[in-house]
Amino acid sequence: MNIVENRYGKSQVRVARIVRGKDRHDFHEMTVAIALEGDFDSSYRDGDNSLVLPTDTRKNTVYALAKDPAVEQPESFAKLLASHFLSRLSHVSCVKIDIHGRLWLRDGPYSFTGGPAHRRIARIEASRDRVSVESGVAGYLVMKTTGSAFEAFLRDEHTTLPEAADRILATSLDAIWSGEANWDGVMKTITDTFAAHASKSVQHTLSAIGEAVLAQHDNIGRIRLTMPNKHYLPTRHADVFIPTDEPHGLIEAVLSR
Amino acid sequence: MNIVENRYGKSQVRVARIVRGKDRHDFHEMTVAIALEGDFDSSYRDGDNSLVLPTDTRKNTVYALAKDPAVEQPESFAKLLASHFLSRLSHVSCVKIDIHGRLWLRDGPYSFTGGPAHRRIARIEASRDRVSVESGVAGYLVMKTTGSAFEAFLRDEHTTLPEAADRILATSLDAIWSGEANWDGVMKTITDTFAAHASKSVQHTLSAIGEAVLAQHDNIGRIRLTMPNKHYLPTRHADVFIPTDEPHGLIEAVLSR
Amino acid sequence: MNIVENRYGKSQVRVARIVRGKDRHDFHEMTVAIALEGDFDSSYRDGDNSLVLPTDTRKNTVYALAKDPAVEQPESFAKLLASHFLSRLSHVSCVKIDIHGRLWLRDGPYSFTGGPAHRRIARIEASRDRVSVESGVAGYLVMKTTGSAFEAFLRDEHTTLPEAADRILATSLDAIWSGEANWDGVMKTITDTFAAHASKSVQHTLSAIGEAVLAQHDNIGRIRLTMPNKHYLPTRHADVFIPTDEPHGLIEAVLSR
Amino acid sequence: MNIVENRYGKSQVRVARIVRGKDRHDFHEMTVAIALEGDFDSSYRDGDNSLVLPTDTRKNTVYALAKDPAVEQPESFAKLLASHFLSRLSHVSCVKIDIHGRLWLRDGPYSFTGGPAHRRIARIEASRDRVSVESGVAGYLVMKTTGSAFEAFLRDEHTTLPEAADRILATSLDAIWSGEANWDGVMKTITDTFAAHASKSVQHTLSAIGEAVLAQHDNIGRIRLTMPNKHYLPTRHADVFIPTDEPHGLIEAVLSR
Repeated sequence: MNIVENRYGKSQVRVARIVRGKDRHDFHEMTVAIALEGDFDSSYRDGDNSLVLPTDTRKNTVYALAKDPAVEQPESFAKLLASHFLSRLSHVSCVKIDIHGRLWLRDGPYSFTGGPAHRRIARIEASRDRVSVESGVAGYLVMKTTGSAFEAFLRDEHTTLPEAADRILATSLDAIWSGEANWDGVMKTITDTFAAHASKSVQHTLSAIGEAVLAQHDNIGRIRLTMPNKHYLPTRHADVFIPTDEPHGLIEAVLSR
Repeated sequence: MNIVENRYGKSQVRVARIVRGKDRHDFHEMTVAIALEGDFDSSYRDGDNSLVLPTDTRKNTVYALAKDPAVEQPESFAKLLASHFLSRLSHVSCVKIDIHGRLWLRDGPYSFTGGPAHRRIARIEASRDRVSVESGVAGYLVMKTTGSAFEAFLRDEHTTLPEAADRILATSLDAIWSGEANWDGVMKTITDTFAAHASKSVQHTLSAIGEAVLAQHDNIGRIRLTMPNKHYLPTRHADVFIPTDEPHGLIEAVLSR
Repeated sequence: MNIVENRYGKSQVRVARIVRGKDRHDFHEMTVAIALEGDFDSSYRDGDNSLVLPTDTRKNTVYALAKDPAVEQPESFAKLLASHFLSRLSHVSCVKIDIHGRLWLRDGPYSFTGGPAHRRIARIEASRDRVSVESGVAGYLVMKTTGSAFEAFLRDEHTTLPEAADRILATSLDAIWSGEANWDGVMKTITDTFAAHASKSVQHTLSAIGEAVLAQHDNIGRIRLTMPNKHYLPTRHADVFIPTDEPHGLIEAVLSR
Repeated sequence: MNIVENRYGKSQVRVARIVRGKDRHDFHEMTVAIALEGDFDSSYRDGDNSLVLPTDTRKNTVYALAKDPAVEQPESFAKLLASHFLSRLSHVSCVKIDIHGRLWLRDGPYSFTGGPAHRRIARIEASRDRVSVESGVAGYLVMKTTGSAFEAFLRDEHTTLPEAADRILATSLDAIWSGEANWDGVMKTITDTFAAHASKSVQHTLSAIGEAVLAQHDNIGRIRLTMPNKHYLPTRHADVFIPTDEPHGLIEAVLSR
């Protein structure tokens, strides 16, 4: 038997940190996933745990390192965690860190209200000779009530969908890009392009968003976009729709310069 | 065998409506639950369906009535639905309508982004001689990083919780009140009181919120508040916390003038 | 301001217990909710915590009492917990305990596999002069491919549903009954009646199930049944259906002798 | 801008099929995901939909093909769907089908009860010159109350986890294997090995399960196993545990001959 591939511990660690300023507190809350790859064959074959750092310890490590100012940016906190494990565990060849940051809305100097459902994400893959960092968003809900069509598509004998010259377009967008860029700036490009684009399909809008991000953010070399079609089905009554959650279409593409 | 009590059909109907203005669209999206009570004994005992309006028809009725301008306020849409069923179905003695409205954030004249997780709610209970209307919010997330203590509580031999002079206070607040009031105004009272109150416990803050709502909104005679304690557990490191979701304490009270 | 009603702490406590037999282990896993009612006004009004036993302590109490053999039956464990709090806290007038037991399937003397999704439930409401105990099931999935019709129902101009002489009937049944009875026996009555009944509607089947439970289990005086209609929508192709989860009809009734 | 990679439509289509036998019905219920890859650049760049078969049509296609006897085995139904799309859409280079089958428990000739939470899965990736078929299980819950240790692991200054000579081991196992094999037979191998193995860690048990599957099922050349550690945390009381859901350790490996 060969162990072709192994990964140990995509621990989902939730952590929050208060950063105390002079007249106000900042608050950072995130979920951290950590995966280590390397030479763990003996733990699989023989139950030899001498090279196995418990996932409980990783959790404690996240708490301990959350004291570091790096915690204020998900990308820098991910880098800190990756280098911590790589520098200490010589049998580990690759560390993957995935951070989902929650977006609390500031209400006062010490108080916050629940923000939108989407998460700011940072992802790092680090080995001893190479580090890749990506940034992005997960679950960004956008919707428009006009400026979207879906017509002249391929039909066969199973096709019953009518053409739509003016439909609601809604998606829960995931994006992940490489290269340093202002996060709020990229989000604004995504939002504005979605709103302004004369959409002929989800694919068409996805492509327009990717193109705009690449055009307006020089450091971004590549972006992956995933846009499930959250349908609002027409009823017999104009302007009345049935919202649905099950994504019947999920459009995904990677765009680069 | 007696049928002591019966309720038929808390249908969860999702509906959305575009209201087309001159230079912009408004968008209303909600989930409507409808329950009818009345003389349905024959349907239970004999399978006689002659008095049973299908829940599918109620769904269609929600779509049809969503064309009415009443859809713009959850309370008025609930009233419209209740009177529709009461006026047509003489064997129905009571109609209960529960509406959960989604809060899209306007981004442009025709575009929106996903808002916070909480829902605006309206609830009506209507019989032929009496109508009660309630308004409220479900799942309103609020959090503060200081100004909250929990000390000098009752202890017994199973108590291990340390006293906390300064802790994070977070909750997912549900509120429902009777009497007409400006919804955004009540939300502001709740938010501001939560932020400003020197909290000795969740009960203490709940009471302060209820008192402020009654004091600042004359028409509100009664408010039910539910505040599960969403703990942020301390770690061995100051200012670093473990967010938890399972509510270990759920505080609920009804306050009236 | 009056505190019309208050409830403190429907703690959701998860607990598991191994009971070690000679050649095998039994395993009990459940979620326990505890609500205390009584004279807590001072905690609300003044933030006086001297009568407030932390919900964290209740959690610890559940763990401590889980050592008792009473844990083997949800009803007896609920009674034990209720009398614990009533006997110690003189300012508490009423204790409500709600237990949801998980159904692991035995695989070997010390091993188990995940069972069905439904939960065995026990519910107690205890004051100093009165105790009511109820037993039941939550989320019991049953489905039949024939023997169910829905015809001759009330129609109006919004009705589009076709009559169905032979449809799939599926529900996720909740039941709660008063009076001591063999749990597996009641479950068998429910299952057998659902399967055998010539159903004219969900109401009709609900009534048949209630009647059978009352007829076959002498100690049960009253049963509440809730049966959401989990529709399998027909397609253009005979025998092919679209499973749906959103319950468009929820039928609920209380039946007694 | 280059479209480096694109995938269109991982449609989640739910479908059920009754197969009518002489004295009983069989019932198949599943969720089907379909992704097509190929030359769709014009749909992205220009909004040209002439090569875009709507995901709604795929849904209808699933319903139509569910009439075929192939529906009785997820692998054969996946093959049928893949060849349908490949043979008709010359611009599609690769079809990926993923089927999750629900496990209803037969109760009578025409009635069923809800089975365990795990799903039987089949996965196919088909291009014009190559087809790969995989089978597996998702979310299989197994638990044992003894025969599991975790000791002599790597420690550092963040390690607080005590060694455990005898702990509860629980996981929600995912497995996917290539090569034709009797599904119930593989499930039995997994279950029996989990129960019998003297476990030194999750890795150790994962390896034992993979080895047993490869040893007992000749056609299986390769198996991927994913086993999140569902911890039962010890309390201060022997034999009393706190069940937790958040997987702090997720062990994953691919084993081959």
